[in-house]
Amino acid sequence: MPNSVETIRIAILGASGYTGAELVRLLSRHPAARIAALTAERQAGRPLTEVFPHLGHLGLPDLVKIDQVDWSGIDFVFCALPHGTTQEIIAALPHALRVVDLSADFRLADPALYAEWYGHEHRAVELQTQAVYGLTELNRRAVRDARLVANPGCYPTATLLPLLPLLLDGLVEAEDIIVDAKSGVSGAGRDAKQQNLFTEVSEGMHAYGVGRHRHMPEMEQELSLAAGRPVTMAFTPHLIPMNRGEFITTYVRLAGARTADDLRAALAERYRNEPFIRVLPAGTVPHTRHVRGSNEVHVSVFRDRLPGRAIVLSVLDNLVKGASGQAVQNMNVMHGLIETMGLEQAPLFP
Amino acid sequence: MPNSVETIRIAILGASGYTGAELVRLLSRHPAARIAALTAERQAGRPLTEVFPHLGHLGLPDLVKIDQVDWSGIDFVFCALPHGTTQEIIAALPHALRVVDLSADFRLADPALYAEWYGHEHRAVELQTQAVYGLTELNRRAVRDARLVANPGCYPTATLLPLLPLLLDGLVEAEDIIVDAKSGVSGAGRDAKQQNLFTEVSEGMHAYGVGRHRHMPEMEQELSLAAGRPVTMAFTPHLIPMNRGEFITTYVRLAGARTADDLRAALAERYRNEPFIRVLPAGTVPHTRHVRGSNEVHVSVFRDRLPGRAIVLSVLDNLVKGASGQAVQNMNVMHGLIETMGLEQAPLFP
Amino acid sequence: MPNSVETIRIAILGASGYTGAELVRLLSRHPAARIAALTAERQAGRPLTEVFPHLGHLGLPDLVKIDQVDWSGIDFVFCALPHGTTQEIIAALPHALRVVDLSADFRLADPALYAEWYGHEHRAVELQTQAVYGLTELNRRAVRDARLVANPGCYPTATLLPLLPLLLDGLVEAEDIIVDAKSGVSGAGRDAKQQNLFTEVSEGMHAYGVGRHRHMPEMEQELSLAAGRPVTMAFTPHLIPMNRGEFITTYVRLAGARTADDLRAALAERYRNEPFIRVLPAGTVPHTRHVRGSNEVHVSVFRDRLPGRAIVLSVLDNLVKGASGQAVQNMNVMHGLIETMGLEQAPLFP
Amino acid sequence: MPNSVETIRIAILGASGYTGAELVRLLSRHPAARIAALTAERQAGRPLTEVFPHLGHLGLPDLVKIDQVDWSGIDFVFCALPHGTTQEIIAALPHALRVVDLSADFRLADPALYAEWYGHEHRAVELQTQAVYGLTELNRRAVRDARLVANPGCYPTATLLPLLPLLLDGLVEAEDIIVDAKSGVSGAGRDAKQQNLFTEVSEGMHAYGVGRHRHMPEMEQELSLAAGRPVTMAFTPHLIPMNRGEFITTYVRLAGARTADDLRAALAERYRNEPFIRVLPAGTVPHTRHVRGSNEVHVSVFRDRLPGRAIVLSVLDNLVKGASGQAVQNMNVMHGLIETMGLEQAPLFP
Repeated sequence: MPNSVETIRIAILGASGYTGAELVRLLSRHPAARIAALTAERQAGRPLTEVFPHLGHLGLPDLVKIDQVDWSGIDFVFCALPHGTTQEIIAALPHALRVVDLSADFRLADPALYAEWYGHEHRAVELQTQAVYGLTELNRRAVRDARLVANPGCYPTATLLPLLPLLLDGLVEAEDIIVDAKSGVSGAGRDAKQQNLFTEVSEGMHAYGVGRHRHMPEMEQELSLAAGRPVTMAFTPHLIPMNRGEFITTYVRLAGARTADDLRAALAERYRNEPFIRVLPAGTVPHTRHVRGSNEVHVSVFRDRLPGRAIVLSVLDNLVKGASGQAVQNMNVMHGLIETMGLEQAPLFP
Repeated sequence: MPNSVETIRIAILGASGYTGAELVRLLSRHPAARIAALTAERQAGRPLTEVFPHLGHLGLPDLVKIDQVDWSGIDFVFCALPHGTTQEIIAALPHALRVVDLSADFRLADPALYAEWYGHEHRAVELQTQAVYGLTELNRRAVRDARLVANPGCYPTATLLPLLPLLLDGLVEAEDIIVDAKSGVSGAGRDAKQQNLFTEVSEGMHAYGVGRHRHMPEMEQELSLAAGRPVTMAFTPHLIPMNRGEFITTYVRLAGARTADDLRAALAERYRNEPFIRVLPAGTVPHTRHVRGSNEVHVSVFRDRLPGRAIVLSVLDNLVKGASGQAVQNMNVMHGLIETMGLEQAPLFP
Repeated sequence: MPNSVETIRIAILGASGYTGAELVRLLSRHPAARIAALTAERQAGRPLTEVFPHLGHLGLPDLVKIDQVDWSGIDFVFCALPHGTTQEIIAALPHALRVVDLSADFRLADPALYAEWYGHEHRAVELQTQAVYGLTELNRRAVRDARLVANPGCYPTATLLPLLPLLLDGLVEAEDIIVDAKSGVSGAGRDAKQQNLFTEVSEGMHAYGVGRHRHMPEMEQELSLAAGRPVTMAFTPHLIPMNRGEFITTYVRLAGARTADDLRAALAERYRNEPFIRVLPAGTVPHTRHVRGSNEVHVSVFRDRLPGRAIVLSVLDNLVKGASGQAVQNMNVMHGLIETMGLEQAPLFP
Repeated sequence: MPNSVETIRIAILGASGYTGAELVRLLSRHPAARIAALTAERQAGRPLTEVFPHLGHLGLPDLVKIDQVDWSGIDFVFCALPHGTTQEIIAALPHALRVVDLSADFRLADPALYAEWYGHEHRAVELQTQAVYGLTELNRRAVRDARLVANPGCYPTATLLPLLPLLLDGLVEAEDIIVDAKSGVSGAGRDAKQQNLFTEVSEGMHAYGVGRHRHMPEMEQELSLAAGRPVTMAFTPHLIPMNRGEFITTYVRLAGARTADDLRAALAERYRNEPFIRVLPAGTVPHTRHVRGSNEVHVSVFRDRLPGRAIVLSVLDNLVKGASGQAVQNMNVMHGLIETMGLEQAPLFP
């Protein structure tokens, strides 16, 4: 099949994980994209349907190793590899290729900060400096021109979309931000780990990574940029017995005499024309299930019983807006396409 | 917005139930359809987003009562009302309107059989006679010309799609067909019933309607037509703690010296060009989760340890191919559209 | 069967709800108790096995209406009726009977506070004044001599058990206490409500009652008593797709130079001899599933990334230590029995 | 603590798996047993609470390797090791020790049959011949005198308890027995396998081992003994998204003019005095959730719509009556104890 002028030929590196599969799901219906290569080192040689039977009807190419990809037939790369394995691989790609990286490898701009949290020197420092943080709605201009976009983490996306504008507009204090986060299990990936067995996860919940989750420095980096000074936050993630969905409860201190209504109004105004962000009316609580499978973010603000405080609630699907959906959104921006292209489908409920 | 020539203006009667919501989800992305009216008697006057927040971004009309619909602006009706309430309503619709009815009211062709299973005389016998049974892949020609299509039940769709061709081709016996069926909870609807509470349904399973489920006469009607003589079957449905999905395990007796491989080959051949039906390779088991949210049916045939027998496995999403998806598929057929229109999205997994 | 001297003859009022059933489960194995009467107004006349088949093997009396109970054969009453319906009923009980009430009706000591949160005057003010708040480990002496024990709510039990001692000992500040709570669905009861259907609750989560949950004044009452001055708190409950379990994440400000380790050490010392409370070692996170079905509370304290703060985690089974288990524990204390009697069984995992 | 005369000193081999943990849960409350040794090769040296935090309060000995056990302090052995690893280990135990083995290693009496299904010669043929099949209710006398009891599989226990008496009494035919089985995930064990991840198992279901599950020969062996001639059956297991519970739907042919009512009456009579088996009244369907955590089996018989057939439904908790509970029950029989000892606790619902 000859390649039409408009079609972007896509390679997905790491197609045997959940974010890889989600990229396939979304891009298979994208009118301006064509999946041209799928890589998975350990599964190379197998048809996609054996690894993900739900994608078996799409007639896509078999899985190959990265070094088997013919880059001359590729226009754009999504990198959905595990954290820490991505740096050399992206550094070795032909320079003409534009890339959205879904790992954490290029999210921290400061090499020292990276080394502190990941325990080793960054292996592609130059690229790290060029990478653009792809929180689309708040960084659209930089994303458009980027060669390498570092797709934000799921928790940071859900947390920062409501929080950054409030901080930028001086509506909340940068001190004492407390983020209590809850996530479905798909965020933990597809590797066989005892702790993620159905029997270990269903019918119960627990916190994890208390005080030391790696999404923290990523969030603090962005909050500090917005506040114009170093910001430290509290962040506690919890694992919830559901496949998809992230629920963020953020406890903030109001600046001056601001109220929860002020915050809601400011967010509603800021995101008025954003197709993927819905600021809910007063008193309406977001549910993760109402964004399942979609690229939407729902946000709500409530008065806190503690004077001078407010509670911000936000939800998204960690595999879509929290990963692959935002990655496609970034590709759309990078290519000057309509931003919702390939991302229009309604949430799946129940 | 003026109505373009090609756009079918849709009314969905009963939009506050799950099949109604699923019609909205699918039709909101259908390039040749526009949702023009949504009815819900008890919720009339409310915006759709209050009843189904996941559909709130679609900008659809508010819910109204059926008698508030301006039928002059409607081309096609989907009726997603509860069983037993549909007959008079469809009888009263303007005759020019074509209808797909998702209830059980028009599935049985024989008024006496209807009366026996539903405990009252049919209230629209003439319509009942005209109604076409909308098992699309096997009744496409009749569906095309129908005014009123009776959309099959979820269990019958999942059971009959593999079974009818085998019976028609004389590969299995009509005697001793045993269907062990398992369904997710969304098939039970959205009414508040204690037995469907999370606490009553999760972390456990049970059978229900043993030996007396109302999908039985519907299946026996179609099996009898295929066999050319009355067929009785065993059917036991079970409720499984999941939202969507239906898994059918059918135990059949092989005709003559036929084998499981013969059955699989016959089904593969029969459904070779069907976009929604996948006959899996030998040894591959279908999973309900691999068709979630899609209009697909996956079928597999296994050798039974009992000589002269085989086991047929089939899965679908009860709200899509088992209800609203097949309804849209039927509309596509009735309007001469490409049959997959509005139904192309890939399954959502995990 | 003649009543032995030691056997306490029990009436359970409201035996058709989940806390009622849980009382039956626990008391049926209690060596010093015998269930003599079970009431359920709407289910009166039915055997228990029809309402709760899992209790069908116990050979217990049929359900009756409250006015059918022969109080001369009763020594002790558990009242598991809905909030707001309990006041007149307990007021009308023979005065010789001792009572543990599992509703919220007698938890607030201040009639004005009750009226503010429940929208009507308290209907048994005198009893309200006498009632003892039954947080057993912290109020054991008063419970022992009480005629009427107001069994604490599930959220207050899980929150206060770690928090009150820290406040009493001056280790944390009374200001700025933020409680982010997560609960399984059984806390919502057995009434048929659409919002608690499996399809509405599974595979997703949401907050509810943000800033206005009725467990707030109960917690603030106890915190204020401990602090010696009025305390206001933030409290956000969330509904998690699991049957049982409550997970409380409490964000506290440390007093002076206290550390998270100080808090853990203080709690470990305070609860050293308590059979139902386990303070976990540093770095160990509690899971709700590890206390499922048992009367245990697990507590853990973590350093917060925000300087001067700590994070306290606590879990319990909302139907056991959060309701019926603590009620039995209180009965044991009131009767001078070994406090663990009938409550020894190990958690059920997985 | 000196060992009292009556106390049985227990070793549990393989205490880091789910059946091992379940043995600990049950035996920790058994008045005549004391857990004296717990083995787990890979976890040796660790306290039990690190492997199973829900058992952390019991004060049990740390995990050791099998060759570290001092057998002189042991009276009874439960062997909960993986299939295939058990034969040499039991053969090497001191001969005075009595053993209940929960693996499949000694369930097949015929060495040739074992070799056929397991792909290697049995490594302890002499023991295999002596082993008694521990389906307690139907083999109590042999169990009492056995040195080595082969504890039945979960599916065989649930299937055979209703089926064997019907076959023995000539009420059903031995031909054409079709068993459609559904199980929770805990039956798959605690090993880290991708296919058992929460994300791969929840919100969906599938069949597995169709036509070749290893519980088949075990069931056919017992059915053949009962029928007095070789019996072949159909058996299809399915994996259900729940932790515990097994639901068996058995389709049988009635002998002569027998009816479903005859079957129910016969089972009710046969099991009249059995404390763990409840034959439900006509029209009542068993639920797995109503036996959760208990040693109960619930059985029900329904008329089939197919003439001359009936449907038998049975449920149990696969970790209790399907494994560890029946193992304890067998120990009770072997020691002449009351058979329900340590097994009295009521099911946990919801």
